[in-house]
Amino acid sequence: MAQTHKTVKDYIRTIVDFPHEGIMFRDVTTLFADPRGFRMAVDQMLHPYAGRRIDKVVGLEARGFILGGAVAHQLGTGFVPIRKKGKLPHTTISQEYQLEYGEAIVEIHDDAIEAGETILLVDDLLATGGTAEAGIKLVERLGGQIVGCAFVVDLPELGGRKRLEGMGMDVHALCAFEGL
Amino acid sequence: MAQTHKTVKDYIRTIVDFPHEGIMFRDVTTLFADPRGFRMAVDQMLHPYAGRRIDKVVGLEARGFILGGAVAHQLGTGFVPIRKKGKLPHTTISQEYQLEYGEAIVEIHDDAIEAGETILLVDDLLATGGTAEAGIKLVERLGGQIVGCAFVVDLPELGGRKRLEGMGMDVHALCAFEGL
Repeated sequence: MAQTHKTVKDYIRTIVDFPHEGIMFRDVTTLFADPRGFRMAVDQMLHPYAGRRIDKVVGLEARGFILGGAVAHQLGTGFVPIRKKGKLPHTTISQEYQLEYGEAIVEIHDDAIEAGETILLVDDLLATGGTAEAGIKLVERLGGQIVGCAFVVDLPELGGRKRLEGMGMDVHALCAFEGL
Repeated sequence: MAQTHKTVKDYIRTIVDFPHEGIMFRDVTTLFADPRGFRMAVDQMLHPYAGRRIDKVVGLEARGFILGGAVAHQLGTGFVPIRKKGKLPHTTISQEYQLEYGEAIVEIHDDAIEAGETILLVDDLLATGGTAEAGIKLVERLGGQIVGCAFVVDLPELGGRKRLEGMGMDVHALCAFEGL
């Protein structure tokens, strides 16, 4: 079957001019909706970390929840969400980060990670790395040790990989797209 | 080990007065963060559907994404998100539903489900059932056949179960909490 040779990248759909003109939006819902694509993505995200101790998977709202839930399930670990401000019900710590215009805040429950726990950070897409950087800071402020940052898509022109590697992070993405 | 006797309900934390006074918020993040709790929840959500054909798992934004990703991974199916208005990049169909004050809209990609596919709908909590009802309508408008609606928590006083059962749905929840 020719389909067995499809790569993760082949399952990703590009939407022109979303959310606004000039943006090529990389839509991973077509990957997640396909049983073979979804399993391949989860397997490949974990491949670099085979044999490493991972205590918890942390996922970034909202598409990182889909992947993170599956990755945590495959590893047999728990899952911890990082959410936009005001969504988590218990006491949190929060981290600000810059958007193209203005700033945003993400939060984590302050008891979600114990000091010394090893963490895999998961999201669907690495663009500027602003959200991921904020997520890394939250995990580290709780004493978590980040084993790696795993993404489906890297947009190298936006510099996220360099930014996270500059923080000492191990960064893996399953595919890259040139162009914004 | 006494811990092996902990039930799913034991892992759920109650937050008093969130998001506003008088509400007892049932916080499933403590369940998801625990490796044993998270796996138990996924296993138990699928238990009623053992041997049934399920083509896709549909999850409701945002906590339904965490569970739905894990449930789809365990089944070996694809995952389809239902999101709040404006979040999905491709062409969608949308469904309005009533909130306590005002109304909200959820959407699904119009090519996410093929007619005749069998669907398990997943979310963390069943309250009034408004969001779930809108999700069911979206799936059915695309020709999907809903095998069941699976939740972690049921709040029976809010009437969601009766509402969904009145639509002919098979509804399962892992535990129930009395009181709002």
